[in-house]
Amino acid sequence: MSRVRKVVLAYSGGLDTSVILKWLQDTYGCEVVTFTADIGQGEELAPARAKAKKLGVKEIYIEDLKEEFARDFVFPMFRANAVYEGEYLLGTSIARPLIAKRQIEIARKTRADAVAHGATGKGNDQVRFELGYYALAPDIRVIAPWREWDLTSREKLMAYAKKHGIPVEMRKKGGSPYSMDANLLHISYEGRMLEDPAKEPEESMWRWTVSPERAPNKPEYVKLEFRHGDCVAVNGRKLTPAQVLTTLNRLGAKHGIGRLDLVENRYVGMKSRGCYETPGGTILLKAHRAMESITLDREVAHIKDELMPRYASLIYNGYWFSPERRLLQELIDASQATVNGWVRLKLYKGNVIVVGRGSDTDSLFDPTIATFEEDRGAYNQADAAGFIRLNALRMRIAAKLKSRR
Amino acid sequence: MSRVRKVVLAYSGGLDTSVILKWLQDTYGCEVVTFTADIGQGEELAPARAKAKKLGVKEIYIEDLKEEFARDFVFPMFRANAVYEGEYLLGTSIARPLIAKRQIEIARKTRADAVAHGATGKGNDQVRFELGYYALAPDIRVIAPWREWDLTSREKLMAYAKKHGIPVEMRKKGGSPYSMDANLLHISYEGRMLEDPAKEPEESMWRWTVSPERAPNKPEYVKLEFRHGDCVAVNGRKLTPAQVLTTLNRLGAKHGIGRLDLVENRYVGMKSRGCYETPGGTILLKAHRAMESITLDREVAHIKDELMPRYASLIYNGYWFSPERRLLQELIDASQATVNGWVRLKLYKGNVIVVGRGSDTDSLFDPTIATFEEDRGAYNQADAAGFIRLNALRMRIAAKLKSRR
Amino acid sequence: MSRVRKVVLAYSGGLDTSVILKWLQDTYGCEVVTFTADIGQGEELAPARAKAKKLGVKEIYIEDLKEEFARDFVFPMFRANAVYEGEYLLGTSIARPLIAKRQIEIARKTRADAVAHGATGKGNDQVRFELGYYALAPDIRVIAPWREWDLTSREKLMAYAKKHGIPVEMRKKGGSPYSMDANLLHISYEGRMLEDPAKEPEESMWRWTVSPERAPNKPEYVKLEFRHGDCVAVNGRKLTPAQVLTTLNRLGAKHGIGRLDLVENRYVGMKSRGCYETPGGTILLKAHRAMESITLDREVAHIKDELMPRYASLIYNGYWFSPERRLLQELIDASQATVNGWVRLKLYKGNVIVVGRGSDTDSLFDPTIATFEEDRGAYNQADAAGFIRLNALRMRIAAKLKSRR
Amino acid sequence: MSRVRKVVLAYSGGLDTSVILKWLQDTYGCEVVTFTADIGQGEELAPARAKAKKLGVKEIYIEDLKEEFARDFVFPMFRANAVYEGEYLLGTSIARPLIAKRQIEIARKTRADAVAHGATGKGNDQVRFELGYYALAPDIRVIAPWREWDLTSREKLMAYAKKHGIPVEMRKKGGSPYSMDANLLHISYEGRMLEDPAKEPEESMWRWTVSPERAPNKPEYVKLEFRHGDCVAVNGRKLTPAQVLTTLNRLGAKHGIGRLDLVENRYVGMKSRGCYETPGGTILLKAHRAMESITLDREVAHIKDELMPRYASLIYNGYWFSPERRLLQELIDASQATVNGWVRLKLYKGNVIVVGRGSDTDSLFDPTIATFEEDRGAYNQADAAGFIRLNALRMRIAAKLKSRR
Repeated sequence: MSRVRKVVLAYSGGLDTSVILKWLQDTYGCEVVTFTADIGQGEELAPARAKAKKLGVKEIYIEDLKEEFARDFVFPMFRANAVYEGEYLLGTSIARPLIAKRQIEIARKTRADAVAHGATGKGNDQVRFELGYYALAPDIRVIAPWREWDLTSREKLMAYAKKHGIPVEMRKKGGSPYSMDANLLHISYEGRMLEDPAKEPEESMWRWTVSPERAPNKPEYVKLEFRHGDCVAVNGRKLTPAQVLTTLNRLGAKHGIGRLDLVENRYVGMKSRGCYETPGGTILLKAHRAMESITLDREVAHIKDELMPRYASLIYNGYWFSPERRLLQELIDASQATVNGWVRLKLYKGNVIVVGRGSDTDSLFDPTIATFEEDRGAYNQADAAGFIRLNALRMRIAAKLKSRR
Repeated sequence: MSRVRKVVLAYSGGLDTSVILKWLQDTYGCEVVTFTADIGQGEELAPARAKAKKLGVKEIYIEDLKEEFARDFVFPMFRANAVYEGEYLLGTSIARPLIAKRQIEIARKTRADAVAHGATGKGNDQVRFELGYYALAPDIRVIAPWREWDLTSREKLMAYAKKHGIPVEMRKKGGSPYSMDANLLHISYEGRMLEDPAKEPEESMWRWTVSPERAPNKPEYVKLEFRHGDCVAVNGRKLTPAQVLTTLNRLGAKHGIGRLDLVENRYVGMKSRGCYETPGGTILLKAHRAMESITLDREVAHIKDELMPRYASLIYNGYWFSPERRLLQELIDASQATVNGWVRLKLYKGNVIVVGRGSDTDSLFDPTIATFEEDRGAYNQADAAGFIRLNALRMRIAAKLKSRR
Repeated sequence: MSRVRKVVLAYSGGLDTSVILKWLQDTYGCEVVTFTADIGQGEELAPARAKAKKLGVKEIYIEDLKEEFARDFVFPMFRANAVYEGEYLLGTSIARPLIAKRQIEIARKTRADAVAHGATGKGNDQVRFELGYYALAPDIRVIAPWREWDLTSREKLMAYAKKHGIPVEMRKKGGSPYSMDANLLHISYEGRMLEDPAKEPEESMWRWTVSPERAPNKPEYVKLEFRHGDCVAVNGRKLTPAQVLTTLNRLGAKHGIGRLDLVENRYVGMKSRGCYETPGGTILLKAHRAMESITLDREVAHIKDELMPRYASLIYNGYWFSPERRLLQELIDASQATVNGWVRLKLYKGNVIVVGRGSDTDSLFDPTIATFEEDRGAYNQADAAGFIRLNALRMRIAAKLKSRR
Repeated sequence: MSRVRKVVLAYSGGLDTSVILKWLQDTYGCEVVTFTADIGQGEELAPARAKAKKLGVKEIYIEDLKEEFARDFVFPMFRANAVYEGEYLLGTSIARPLIAKRQIEIARKTRADAVAHGATGKGNDQVRFELGYYALAPDIRVIAPWREWDLTSREKLMAYAKKHGIPVEMRKKGGSPYSMDANLLHISYEGRMLEDPAKEPEESMWRWTVSPERAPNKPEYVKLEFRHGDCVAVNGRKLTPAQVLTTLNRLGAKHGIGRLDLVENRYVGMKSRGCYETPGGTILLKAHRAMESITLDREVAHIKDELMPRYASLIYNGYWFSPERRLLQELIDASQATVNGWVRLKLYKGNVIVVGRGSDTDSLFDPTIATFEEDRGAYNQADAAGFIRLNALRMRIAAKLKSRR
């Protein structure tokens, strides 16, 4: 294989990717470009710059991608009501393609011939990064240090760091024993105590939300407005997509909303246990479904529901940039033209309760037809007899045949 | 059309079906057989007998079908995690086929040539009753008084009742202004105030559950055991299917669990707003999904998820006895062979939180492979590189083609 | 119901619709507007005008819709490879919505308040017409004489015609005993001898194609060119959509291509036996699939294949103008952007054989990778080991668990 | 990795697997057990025994698996009407799992710790073999010589054979330049001239069927009888599954039936061009569909049609022993209970034409309802009005909303 000259590393500034940075320099004898993105993980990015500089990096990219993340990734996904395996809101899955895309763009700009990431060889994230890389730059060289090096335990990693003067003093993220990932949509926890799916996670693990028990005793009402399936205002204030997520995260976190504890099926073949906090996303999903309930045609909604698990799997498995995800997105986006209006929710100790929905322009709820009262001929009840009889016909023919046998 | 001699009426003992009883006698000049089932609606059935007698009925069937309902209808449906339009647990839909089936059986026994029900011509229930009738007795005569008579307003109905000496003194179900339906799985509300989907229902409407606000301040833990996908024990006590529902209903109701307010798409073509309380079912669904999460193969689970919306629609639309529902049930039941083990839940003010799950016999969760720690070769991380590269191949070929253009 | 003042009738000029014309005038005392479309059925339309005039019709619409039919209905459908129940190319189904649409447009123009058609109450066509009417003009009055009148046998119909001076001398379509329907895409046969599905149709029934036995003994090669999934040229000659169908019909008919004899499931609930000739469509379908085989991504093609049966059912059942058909069309059309190139076929005695396909711009067939010969590193065979091992992982975990039990 | 002691090789007796045999002995220093199966490929198996003996093999398994292949693999697959990508009848795909299964059984019997096959690292067959191995024996060691050795060109392979005294004099299968695979269901061709998808294959390539041009000028009629979806008799003679395939292959080959030339999408990610002859299978598929057309309920048939592409992909991709294929098979097999009766076909120069079908016990074709003639009240045409109006209701509501805007 040809020599690597320059590699763009997805760099968090933490211990692991700092070790990777050094290891890349040493092992490949190549220049490293670091790329650090603010996608709402809630961490200072300045230290990443300092550390990268200290490790001799000349090209350092630090970017605020929060709006792009919310607008071009999170929002399109929510149009589909995407949920993986009935529960998981895909918070990590949806962030990886954006990182991959920017790494490739930076590789083009800096004339790098390789990209690298800090995901392990066991998880889904490596797949999500690399499918993104390959889809956008088919000839790019991909380096996945965790699959290559011999730093197979935390001890060896620490020893390597020490030996090469990489600061390990402050454990990342305040010393959590969990493997965590955070962005504007969610924070996730894996590993350690969680590896026993029979055990309840300790309360101290959760970082974003209060527990339902400690949430306010008074419910709070919130109104979301939608345009073409996207939330565009909260409580009457127009907001950008990232602002929507920030606002809903704050509300959800306050009311103990969006915690999740599950066992999921990884694309690489094993089951794993993860815990997630998706406060804003949980509110948004509930509201979006309610918005669709009065603005979408029944069969359109049902087609969306039937395609959703597949769409969610595509995102979970890392196929954001695949032609099939793009194809399904065409259908999903087309369905949202009429998803306009507002939804009112009540937030209370972990609950997101829909209490009202309306649309001045696109409501298909027709009270004159639905009513149990006299409807003045809007609906002819006699029609139902023929409707039922013809829908029953094939079953009647079969039943007659059976009775003759 | 030939003369009707004897009709089996699904008789609740309430005002509406009492009027129907009389109307059938008068209009068709036929004998009426009443059939009243206890499916857990929580009402006294003795008055139904007295009323029927008073109206001259000679053949009165009053039956406790709670176990059959739970075992042969509710439980098979929960194996599929069936939810209509993302929210509705199908509480009314699943009860109608059982009533229809017993009506047909009674019609055979009493040599009746017709069946009748009290559902209106606008709703789903008429379809559910009648598709059941036709599937089981293709030549049965079906009488749907609401589609035939001229008692098109409540006033006319009352007048008719008064004129024929049918007691109207006590309004059914304690004077609720809502159209309600209850059984072991749920209670539903439609009509009146609910016909404006923008408005929050009044607290006084809800009959089974306390509000989350008034639920206990202390969480309660509960353990469900499953065998072949069915819950067979709660907190260590073996229970029959109906007992499971009763027990979980009590727990759910106490903790404010299972309220739902939605706009749904009826099979007959319009949107309608309904409110539901499904306390036990809400707990059961969450637990069943968690049970499956460690005992079902990934692809099996995904096939179930993709077929679920269609299966749920079949039940919602009244096709319980159709060949296609039976066919899907074969697949669903076959999938449950390994769904054995236990799930532990925390109930708190409207929340059902999974806090643990395990299976001595069928857990596919393999901590030696999933672990982030050293796994002693259980999983070879290098395998992931090939996995990713071949999964990316078609996208790389396409990207290369694109770049050449 | 309110009085009908003016009705637009889908008028073929044949006996049945002439009787309907008269019957409408007499029964509803209303003015009748006739609409006769040339959609390639291959019949003279001039007599329709004469007849309508003779029956007192003042507004007579006779239109050539062949291009619109091919371009806006047939071609979009072929992009989906739509086939109903594995066999039927939907020749009748796809024509009805166009007729319905023009009837509604003419009704608007002529200020008519009703539309009428000549389809019976047993078939699919009534549904296709009327769903089209209602989707486009929700308040239109629909008159379906076959469901209303008492002319329930051919004898009564003839008697009515005689009595009202409607010419019955020449039996429609040269005296065929079959119920037939023809357009640019196909001709169909139903009824009479065909009502016994055990019997082979007589050779004399078929009107468009020669039998394979009488087709030329020499094969003929033909080359189709595609652009965005549509055939735009045959044997190097640029053609309009209608010309494409005409050309392929001629070729197919000559070579005994496109006969079909099947039992299908009607939307109204019964099975029926139909025979079809779709010479051009059969060629086009085969060619389109071959075109896609080298220009579509695998997963895109598979999604199309999985959605196709539902899309075909929508068309068969008359839902062309439904939101769900339009939604699926968005996906299908989006998939066709790369379906550009050519396909070469050999036509011989009923066979359509693909013998070559190519695309200068969009071929995803990469011989350097597919080759069994030395590929100079385009594909790393070692990747397959990891690919297989991770795809097998979940099955291995399950097998180990099983072996431990 | 631990040492290999004994390996079970899928051995054809041809040059490639003979080289593999020797290479395994040399490279792994292990004992080799050969397994050669007669699955209807139409080759002498005696030479395989002689060759293996000559190469020092002590445990030689040669088995006739034709009946098992037809009964437990081909027939279940045909119940699903499985076709990959609209065209390919899966002839190679369905044979691999059987070989894999027997290899594992022999490995258990002979206490071998490894299995090996002769499939290359580029194709689907390696996946099919190995997914089978791993699903049945999760800890088995798998050796895929083509992915390991350095015999990367035919020249090197020949040199190796010569050096080790492996006879290369007679080129396998009469010197065909194509890569071929044959069994009771089909014969396939890949490679060489076929690597240009624009070119028509030479007539001399095809080995089983005559060309349609050279097929008899007289059609032949054949009658197939089905029981539970399986063909059990041809022209009145009861036959075993393997005999059915043999008989239909003879008929199909004689009449030029079952040739196919296509570009398909391999599971490992690239497109490849293959040619196939499946004479008997082509007849069987057409007949099975026709049998289902009168014995299956509409919705059951449609569910099967929608699931078929996925089922076919599972087999194509090698997931025969996966839980999801088994799950779908439950549904498919359950659907076949009523698929009993007969189909009559006309075979003529490449055409398989259905000319009649019937079922004494399970025909759902009811001529009294389907008839265009007077049906004496079997079907009430007026029912259709209500059927249509309620099916149109949601579209009417939407159209009214639109018109108000």
